[in-house]
Amino acid sequence: MRIAVIGGGSSYTPELIKGLLDISGDVQIDEVIFYDINEEKQKIVVDFVRRLVKDRFRVLIAESFKDAVMDAKYVIFQFRPGGLKGREKDEGIPLKYGLIGQETTGVGGFSAALRAFPVVEEYVETVRKVSNATIINFTNPSGHITEFVRNYLDYEKFIGLCNVPINFIREISEMFSVNLEDVFLKYYGLNHLSFVERVFVKGQDVTEKVFENLKLKLSNIPDEDFPEWFYDSVRLLVNPYLRYYLMEKKMFKKITSHELRSREVMKIEEQLFEKYRTATEIPEELSKRGGSMYSTAAAHLIRDLEKDEGKIHIVNTRNNGSIENLPNDYVLEIPCYVRSGRALSISQGKGDLFALSFIHAVKMYERLTIEAYLKRSKKLALKALLSHPLGPDVEDAKDLLEEILKANSEHVKLV
Amino acid sequence: MRIAVIGGGSSYTPELIKGLLDISGDVQIDEVIFYDINEEKQKIVVDFVRRLVKDRFRVLIAESFKDAVMDAKYVIFQFRPGGLKGREKDEGIPLKYGLIGQETTGVGGFSAALRAFPVVEEYVETVRKVSNATIINFTNPSGHITEFVRNYLDYEKFIGLCNVPINFIREISEMFSVNLEDVFLKYYGLNHLSFVERVFVKGQDVTEKVFENLKLKLSNIPDEDFPEWFYDSVRLLVNPYLRYYLMEKKMFKKITSHELRSREVMKIEEQLFEKYRTATEIPEELSKRGGSMYSTAAAHLIRDLEKDEGKIHIVNTRNNGSIENLPNDYVLEIPCYVRSGRALSISQGKGDLFALSFIHAVKMYERLTIEAYLKRSKKLALKALLSHPLGPDVEDAKDLLEEILKANSEHVKLV
Amino acid sequence: MRIAVIGGGSSYTPELIKGLLDISGDVQIDEVIFYDINEEKQKIVVDFVRRLVKDRFRVLIAESFKDAVMDAKYVIFQFRPGGLKGREKDEGIPLKYGLIGQETTGVGGFSAALRAFPVVEEYVETVRKVSNATIINFTNPSGHITEFVRNYLDYEKFIGLCNVPINFIREISEMFSVNLEDVFLKYYGLNHLSFVERVFVKGQDVTEKVFENLKLKLSNIPDEDFPEWFYDSVRLLVNPYLRYYLMEKKMFKKITSHELRSREVMKIEEQLFEKYRTATEIPEELSKRGGSMYSTAAAHLIRDLEKDEGKIHIVNTRNNGSIENLPNDYVLEIPCYVRSGRALSISQGKGDLFALSFIHAVKMYERLTIEAYLKRSKKLALKALLSHPLGPDVEDAKDLLEEILKANSEHVKLV
Amino acid sequence: MRIAVIGGGSSYTPELIKGLLDISGDVQIDEVIFYDINEEKQKIVVDFVRRLVKDRFRVLIAESFKDAVMDAKYVIFQFRPGGLKGREKDEGIPLKYGLIGQETTGVGGFSAALRAFPVVEEYVETVRKVSNATIINFTNPSGHITEFVRNYLDYEKFIGLCNVPINFIREISEMFSVNLEDVFLKYYGLNHLSFVERVFVKGQDVTEKVFENLKLKLSNIPDEDFPEWFYDSVRLLVNPYLRYYLMEKKMFKKITSHELRSREVMKIEEQLFEKYRTATEIPEELSKRGGSMYSTAAAHLIRDLEKDEGKIHIVNTRNNGSIENLPNDYVLEIPCYVRSGRALSISQGKGDLFALSFIHAVKMYERLTIEAYLKRSKKLALKALLSHPLGPDVEDAKDLLEEILKANSEHVKLV
Repeated sequence: MRIAVIGGGSSYTPELIKGLLDISGDVQIDEVIFYDINEEKQKIVVDFVRRLVKDRFRVLIAESFKDAVMDAKYVIFQFRPGGLKGREKDEGIPLKYGLIGQETTGVGGFSAALRAFPVVEEYVETVRKVSNATIINFTNPSGHITEFVRNYLDYEKFIGLCNVPINFIREISEMFSVNLEDVFLKYYGLNHLSFVERVFVKGQDVTEKVFENLKLKLSNIPDEDFPEWFYDSVRLLVNPYLRYYLMEKKMFKKITSHELRSREVMKIEEQLFEKYRTATEIPEELSKRGGSMYSTAAAHLIRDLEKDEGKIHIVNTRNNGSIENLPNDYVLEIPCYVRSGRALSISQGKGDLFALSFIHAVKMYERLTIEAYLKRSKKLALKALLSHPLGPDVEDAKDLLEEILKANSEHVKLV
Repeated sequence: MRIAVIGGGSSYTPELIKGLLDISGDVQIDEVIFYDINEEKQKIVVDFVRRLVKDRFRVLIAESFKDAVMDAKYVIFQFRPGGLKGREKDEGIPLKYGLIGQETTGVGGFSAALRAFPVVEEYVETVRKVSNATIINFTNPSGHITEFVRNYLDYEKFIGLCNVPINFIREISEMFSVNLEDVFLKYYGLNHLSFVERVFVKGQDVTEKVFENLKLKLSNIPDEDFPEWFYDSVRLLVNPYLRYYLMEKKMFKKITSHELRSREVMKIEEQLFEKYRTATEIPEELSKRGGSMYSTAAAHLIRDLEKDEGKIHIVNTRNNGSIENLPNDYVLEIPCYVRSGRALSISQGKGDLFALSFIHAVKMYERLTIEAYLKRSKKLALKALLSHPLGPDVEDAKDLLEEILKANSEHVKLV
Repeated sequence: MRIAVIGGGSSYTPELIKGLLDISGDVQIDEVIFYDINEEKQKIVVDFVRRLVKDRFRVLIAESFKDAVMDAKYVIFQFRPGGLKGREKDEGIPLKYGLIGQETTGVGGFSAALRAFPVVEEYVETVRKVSNATIINFTNPSGHITEFVRNYLDYEKFIGLCNVPINFIREISEMFSVNLEDVFLKYYGLNHLSFVERVFVKGQDVTEKVFENLKLKLSNIPDEDFPEWFYDSVRLLVNPYLRYYLMEKKMFKKITSHELRSREVMKIEEQLFEKYRTATEIPEELSKRGGSMYSTAAAHLIRDLEKDEGKIHIVNTRNNGSIENLPNDYVLEIPCYVRSGRALSISQGKGDLFALSFIHAVKMYERLTIEAYLKRSKKLALKALLSHPLGPDVEDAKDLLEEILKANSEHVKLV
Repeated sequence: MRIAVIGGGSSYTPELIKGLLDISGDVQIDEVIFYDINEEKQKIVVDFVRRLVKDRFRVLIAESFKDAVMDAKYVIFQFRPGGLKGREKDEGIPLKYGLIGQETTGVGGFSAALRAFPVVEEYVETVRKVSNATIINFTNPSGHITEFVRNYLDYEKFIGLCNVPINFIREISEMFSVNLEDVFLKYYGLNHLSFVERVFVKGQDVTEKVFENLKLKLSNIPDEDFPEWFYDSVRLLVNPYLRYYLMEKKMFKKITSHELRSREVMKIEEQLFEKYRTATEIPEELSKRGGSMYSTAAAHLIRDLEKDEGKIHIVNTRNNGSIENLPNDYVLEIPCYVRSGRALSISQGKGDLFALSFIHAVKMYERLTIEAYLKRSKKLALKALLSHPLGPDVEDAKDLLEEILKANSEHVKLV
């Protein structure tokens, strides 16, 4: 089979390829084809990838998106619309208004989404026409995009992925010295706004033990920790991004006292690409890049979609009853039974009210943003911004939106 | 029939009585009986009331709550647990933490609710036992208390009331020079967090005209106005209390630059009571007290519950399908068909996503607060506070809660 | 305003006109325009109608359906696709297979629906294009057609009407010697499969008294009565048509021992039309025709849609929360708050399980039949027939369907 | 661990034991303890079981139900309240009224349920108190009893089992020469009223092939087959018991032309017990007894509840979103992800309308029957009987109920 990787020039690509190499014994990968609008970066990466892959499968570069996805069984979206320059603006603009500036959360996530929607829309329509492939999405904001594709573009074979769930699992597996597959979670929420309510390890409910240990520190996120009483009260493991909601002032201070993450990443990437030109092994520096276990998440998902063994993956898909007290059509990050090309959500009972408070509010924001995009409406965009828990006050909303739109005028136009 | 008024010593009582006098031609009121734990204030008010009522119905004072509600067909809750001193703390404490200090909204509403729940619980259980009367509730936070009584105490004949809906209607009726009954709204939300999506006047959809006029300024609330673009974007008339959510900084500044409203009210009340000692007419000063049209709302509701004519009242009750995309069991402020003792919600279609964003989040907070009270749990109380859009950051939550609990230790104890 | 009457040649028309004359003081009726494919019958009726109406409003005949509905504010569907000849087959064919042969229920209702759908579809699409009028439907099977139009054609301004609800109300009003408007019911179900769970008269719950009296005998239906224990067990007043479900053998015997109702009606109609040629008053014989109070139901509904007074009418429309334990999208026969052009369902709590058993089963049959029509699929039509509680066994289903399709081949073709 | 088997004197017991022996390498079974009110039969069976088991685990007989379930981790319900004599009446009485007489379906299932509920209620309450064990239920009507326990007794750890699902799977696995685990079904419905909508084998959707083959003939059921067009129309594999609904006359004829199945089974049992007295191997005659693969279903379920591997079992449990267009609280027979002591339903999308027609109607009947039992109400029992698609007409309902109640007066009393 053919796997298409969109955003082939990403610095993550070599890690993804390592993942695909790992599963290439279990499933038949014939070729991996890359597509990126940045041909230069892609060239460097793909040359390196070829050295990594040797002849275990064919490594190709596509002339066009359509060529890439034609005949593909899986399409991996890992492109970043607007690149790191775009991210820089997502992070920087909100700060001027005293708001969290973050790639996927709050106002930054809003502008990232507006940049992503037109590209995603075009790409998904092309896939629908030429191959009806299963799309695995890492493009951020990953859950928001899945909401868009599943509920508004109505393309079913689209699975949103993120490395947070697998890192939760890894932390727990390390805590108990077991394999990843021995960990089973009651897990739900939106992407970057998810909650773990119960933890099972080798069939035992170890939730209490986990709270006792509570060293749960995910990589890729700031080290500010919630105090102990927080976990005693909330009784949920929370996605690290919840810090932005619950420690807004502290996180704002932290962000503004550092260089923007986008700029750090630009430097790391520069070094990485320098290495990629000649490397034959994945350079250690890639670990600084974030995205830990990203390749494992993607490769194992493809493996289990291909096979008939029935494995659990935590992915972004429609709720469909998994959380009883949330509507069926909300796209959530939830455990699914993955088998033979399908990811079926499994029932997890009721969700916690605290978690639901944030999930509902941000889901409404997500949908308002999507509607703003679909109608190209500034008015709806303001409505979306005002509805976000991390959004602006009325006084700033209009200026903020104008600044965002101006900065992203090449990508999206609202009137 | 007998109507019991709980919190008879309230300065509002004379206005309520005026309302009851107004309907006493339509329905048979035999006696109104008052109960208040502040016997002194109640004495002043009731003496005045007797002068107002003359012999149109009997005016009695009850020795106990039980005596008051025994044989009553309607019980009106208008008591204020903790009095204005309690309100003063609700308003003052949050300010120290940089948070909105307001009687019903946010952290202030949280402590008001915790003070109210034990009294409401005891009173409702007594009514259930001795008379099964219909309770009409004005005690704040009125919607939160209705959620508590309907969904947790499971007492059905409890209707939460507020003067905001009738003031919306009055504003519109004045705008179009029509009667109150000529106005029909698509109206929904929580108490003090409600939205008007469509306006019908004499059967015509005048929504666009209303937005054009948009002088809609409700009394009883600060004069800070949303800008024009806000209404263009949101396309909803919003409850004035939404200002606290959407102009948080501005409203904080405003609150802190004035005397606390509770202290103003204390002064007004002092003057009012001075007048009540001798008055034979309702003194003009009562209009400064806020609560405009409160008596109309209550009296007309009682009239229409008694009669078989089928009138619309906007009250707090279970959704039961009125807003399709909200759960049936949410207590909402919605139009009901009132006839023969029952208030049946009417279907209004889907709610707007922007409105739903706030409604969901605050409903989750309401339920967490109720659970915190029922389990007398500080942990759950913290969880509730953290879930509120106007609640504290993690850094302050614990200190804030301790201060609130200390200030209200006579009313409620959490452990 | 203009009211269009489709099926103007119906023998009911004069009664309808009487209803319109009754309301013509309350609402401004400028003209009533008739359309019928049977021009001859229509001519006789309209001539008679003109004698009745005199000059109180204009009475017109349209050349085409489109002409009739153009500029109409209300369109009344009272046509019978296939005429009484069609009904004769609906009643006769099932009998050969030992099945209930009835105009609207079971297999007869199935073939009537298949004949009606193509006409309804064409007509509704025309109305949507030329006037967007409110359609009031009496064409049978009225509820089934409303399900089709609301949920499959997605035309909102379509209200299904039947004379059974108003006859329930009339019976009760006579029982208690009160006006129609003094009666308020908890009423729900499908058209011809409806249930009354509670009865209020002048605001009092008189349900027990009604069961005690239980002389409730609706006109238009056979006089076979349920035994007393039936009402003691079921605690519901039931639509007379439920006899076909619960006394299938007895009703079958009864039907086969009489002349077919369609043939009786043909004779009555012949006499009626003879009278219509010369009459200046509605002839007494019309009361034998069935359809009692049909004109009151229609005329009062139009009056209350026009006015702003808020009246309750029991009509076929989407549930939208009226019955909590039925899906929102089921078209049901339920009380609605009618005001200013809209009929909004009111919440009635949970439905009884016994009632739900039949409602669910027949609703699934309705939808399967609609899908069979939309896909012109014999296979789906068989599936629909097999799913009906009064449908054929597997042994007979295929022959039965073929015979129905053959008999109706001018109206609908399935492959 | 300890496994308690209630109804140890069942002729099926040796097969169950064979299943437990099969899994005893995978999970640690320390002892199996039996309880039966028929001590004599149990003695014969257990002696035989001891010869089969040898010393692979302890085989015990309990003095009381409480002793049996104390310390048990799993409790298997396979008792038959009223024994085969009870079944004989369930099968025989309906025939007199021209109704299907069948152990689990229709009127026979009704009386079986009424006999079972009091015993199940008492047993479940005991388990709740002494061990909180997981109960695996084979007692008939298995789904109806699960509805009762899950939704009315509110005992969560109760899983209803039946051998029909595993026989569906076996038929398909044989059709494609694959293992049981290679078959994955979209399967839903009530016990003995279930439907297969899609079939996957080794990850391929083979639904069309299955319909082509359609030799699908389940053992244990009559050989009357649906005609080919039936499957073409309905596009569902159907539970063999659907014959009673769709070929009622034919099945009635068949039943009345044979000896009652209960009497056949009595004879088979007599022979079996004769063999059991001396046997050291399971006698071939057991295969005539019905219940094929019963032991595999039970033993594999216990194995997979014990282990952490995540396997799919089709069991009776609450829907919880598995079928989107059925309420969450319906107990259904659906595929669950079984892992570490829990069976979590997996989302399967929407159910077919034809299937839903029967599922809804019979679920309402189930609940009415349960309510009749809980309130010991003849009136509600009549209501339940009248609501069943295979229930009596009004004319016969009262006599039929009285006869059933008289015949079962030792087991249950309604007033």
